[in-house]
Amino acid sequence: MPQELRAVDWTGTSLALIDQTVLPHRTETVEIRDVEALVSAVQRLVVRGAPAIGAAGAYGVAIAILEGEREGWTAEEVRAAVARVREARPTAVNLMVCVDRVMTRFDEGLEAVLEEAAAVQREDVEANRMMGAHGADWLLKRVGVDRPLRVLTHCNTGALATAGWGTALGVIRELHARGRLDVVYADETRPLLQGSRLTAWELAQEGIPHYVQADAAAAGTILRGEVDAAVVGADRIAANGDTANKVGTVGIALACADAGIPFLVAAPTTTVDVATASGADIHIELRGEDEVLEWGGMRTAPAGSRGHNPAFDVTPGRLVTGLVTEQGVWEVSAGELPGERLR
Amino acid sequence: MPQELRAVDWTGTSLALIDQTVLPHRTETVEIRDVEALVSAVQRLVVRGAPAIGAAGAYGVAIAILEGEREGWTAEEVRAAVARVREARPTAVNLMVCVDRVMTRFDEGLEAVLEEAAAVQREDVEANRMMGAHGADWLLKRVGVDRPLRVLTHCNTGALATAGWGTALGVIRELHARGRLDVVYADETRPLLQGSRLTAWELAQEGIPHYVQADAAAAGTILRGEVDAAVVGADRIAANGDTANKVGTVGIALACADAGIPFLVAAPTTTVDVATASGADIHIELRGEDEVLEWGGMRTAPAGSRGHNPAFDVTPGRLVTGLVTEQGVWEVSAGELPGERLR
Repeated sequence: MPQELRAVDWTGTSLALIDQTVLPHRTETVEIRDVEALVSAVQRLVVRGAPAIGAAGAYGVAIAILEGEREGWTAEEVRAAVARVREARPTAVNLMVCVDRVMTRFDEGLEAVLEEAAAVQREDVEANRMMGAHGADWLLKRVGVDRPLRVLTHCNTGALATAGWGTALGVIRELHARGRLDVVYADETRPLLQGSRLTAWELAQEGIPHYVQADAAAAGTILRGEVDAAVVGADRIAANGDTANKVGTVGIALACADAGIPFLVAAPTTTVDVATASGADIHIELRGEDEVLEWGGMRTAPAGSRGHNPAFDVTPGRLVTGLVTEQGVWEVSAGELPGERLR
Repeated sequence: MPQELRAVDWTGTSLALIDQTVLPHRTETVEIRDVEALVSAVQRLVVRGAPAIGAAGAYGVAIAILEGEREGWTAEEVRAAVARVREARPTAVNLMVCVDRVMTRFDEGLEAVLEEAAAVQREDVEANRMMGAHGADWLLKRVGVDRPLRVLTHCNTGALATAGWGTALGVIRELHARGRLDVVYADETRPLLQGSRLTAWELAQEGIPHYVQADAAAAGTILRGEVDAAVVGADRIAANGDTANKVGTVGIALACADAGIPFLVAAPTTTVDVATASGADIHIELRGEDEVLEWGGMRTAPAGSRGHNPAFDVTPGRLVTGLVTEQGVWEVSAGELPGERLR
């Protein structure tokens, strides 16, 4: 069942992670029983997506306690193990926030820790559900047609990237659940192909009609009128609505603006960073060159070529028709600034 | 030497084609001595790009005559062989035009045929050289900075795609020759990677500094101010300046318009089809789904996924800052319509 897809699942004594490195060819679960294995899983991208990593880290505290019981660790040794989980991906702020939240109940023992970790996961899924409902309501009203919608998305923002359901893909799931979704255009999302490997896999699992397309096809597909709206996620949103998201996002926003169709960003309010005034203050991470010079480990570019591999781009708030969070929709390009409502 | 790179080269008794299917890993030349081999080379994309295919077809008439001499064919049998070359790729209008032009001198014999084929090739290179000079003049004036330019391009429009020098890449070569080129951002150009395989190879051959980037990176690279201009080729240009080119082109044009930098289309005047009023009349070819669902024969998308694979997109004339041909530059978005000047 769609709503039961869990990238991160507590079995009662261990953590079950869907291994996202082998999707879509194999659906395998990695069972995590110790801190070493959890840190490795986070670093190898067995689990990815800020909310999913956060949920895994939350349960990581319980993993450390259970391992400590088996190994006879002191409380200090357990805390040191938790610190290793917390630092597994230094740029994943959400991982640290989730671990810290669960650690506030560390002294109450395993039951309290598990209760808090479950709350982290449950609240993320609830937020995604609310986001999906708000987003679907807004899109249907905004597009204003009777037929089901044709929606374009980029990267993976689904159950695999979150504690469950998804952000942008949660809006798409909600449209599907209401019988108001015609088809999804899923950009393949080079260089790591999260779109064709992960989003298409989630859509295929649920029988949602979809096309995978090259990222370069997105603008033309939109300008030819084959799409009613685009829905994407966000990594970080500045107070003025400028939105950092997977590289390729701003090109979609430009095409939507030109075609006059809605460009909707779906993200929890925690993604809005009111301390960041605008996109100019967001540092764009450059990832390894080989990701764009190779394909599946085989070099495609000549030996002498350099690669330029920004992981994200920034979509100016003026191009963000809507920003949907669990609280509702901000019409950013019409002047509703997220920073003003959250400050 | 840069100017001597020939995708299509007459050796005196045979046709030497650079095998573009094995670039950039191996630089191999296929020697063509009979019609069967030429038809196969065109169909397998050993040679690609309309002007390059046209030049190969022009020399194909000589190949047919020489094969006929060896095999004792009648004039009718030679003509039938030429017809096979002419039809090797039914959508390649330029191939037919070039073969027909050379065939006007068929009755004069081999020398005349070779003279005409050489003229086809020479005139294409000359047109590209003039295009390069006009384009470089215009870009330098338009960008109006003292430092060398940072230029973005898409797909392959170089010596490999033409009879020599190149169209959009010819403009870039000209800037480099003048010492006015800083760096080239070459989009990899999914699904067939002509950018990372072929454009990067040409640039690497000549020691031109360049980055290969994912197609999805183009808009962000432009909006962050890392590029001074984009230069692309064209497959077909309507009378109003609407331009069909490799999928991904219109996204670059949208980003250039938003950033306020020039978007230059480089193509010979023969690319302008005055009989086509606008881009709405240009049929967009959908290629095989597997190109976006697979890589190197390995499936990347789930078994249940469909692919959407438009080969081209149409950039509205309003986004085409300049169109450079061998005749000069039309400032299309400022109202200079190519159809009016060529009719």
